[in-house]
Amino acid sequence: MTSDDTQIRDVVTARVSAMRTGDAAGLVSGYAPDAVTFDLAPPLRNVGASATKLRNWFAGFDGPVDYEVRDLDVSISGDLAFTHSLNRMSAIPHGAPTGFELWFRSTLGLRKLDGSWTIVHEHNSTPFYMDGSLRAALDLKP
Amino acid sequence: MTSDDTQIRDVVTARVSAMRTGDAAGLVSGYAPDAVTFDLAPPLRNVGASATKLRNWFAGFDGPVDYEVRDLDVSISGDLAFTHSLNRMSAIPHGAPTGFELWFRSTLGLRKLDGSWTIVHEHNSTPFYMDGSLRAALDLKP
Repeated sequence: MTSDDTQIRDVVTARVSAMRTGDAAGLVSGYAPDAVTFDLAPPLRNVGASATKLRNWFAGFDGPVDYEVRDLDVSISGDLAFTHSLNRMSAIPHGAPTGFELWFRSTLGLRKLDGSWTIVHEHNSTPFYMDGSLRAALDLKP
Repeated sequence: MTSDDTQIRDVVTARVSAMRTGDAAGLVSGYAPDAVTFDLAPPLRNVGASATKLRNWFAGFDGPVDYEVRDLDVSISGDLAFTHSLNRMSAIPHGAPTGFELWFRSTLGLRKLDGSWTIVHEHNSTPFYMDGSLRAALDLKP
């Protein structure tokens, strides 16, 4: 039987593939319906994941999204786990002259529900510059 | 014996008090030495907590920091736990004409080490506006 650590890493790897292929339904199936998510964009807090929202998000790009997870750390006890990692995303917004590349921090909280590790909490973010600009720090690299 | 849920909520309450009284040593004592933290300000990732850095941070304000934790959700299994909440901080930067108030998202990962719930991961953030400004969304409220 695959260890819980391997199962959770497989969940993360499958999400990377789903991001790269634009598989909104696959991504949404990984979340509990009441998952509390803190996303890169406002609002402060969301509940649940929406395939329609994700499809619209993918549709806003020319070509595929590239996605990478680095330094994945997994902590597990019984049916509870959390992970943290530094993730890279790059894409070309529809109609934009050039693409962007962005590193951000990602924390997942997971529960093993009916034998499957399921996301019950997600927190993705960039820090921001505490100078006059108060801009998101989108140029940082690990 | 106090339940783990109560013990973890007590950890969070003690941190609120330590923020309000500027107790840098008290705050730092709650972290594991190898805790990976994702903070509001750059860099992307820190390891461990520093009382000196925290003391300097407190010294940058006129008067006390106000701090509040709302919607604290606690998940526990065995010796592992994570929490998420929406936190409010307000303070007056030294020499600034006026103070600021900020709501941000907070996720904690905890391990029960030698009988004490200890922070092994922290992720604090604001989202950012994905318009031309790319500014941190510092005006959001729960």
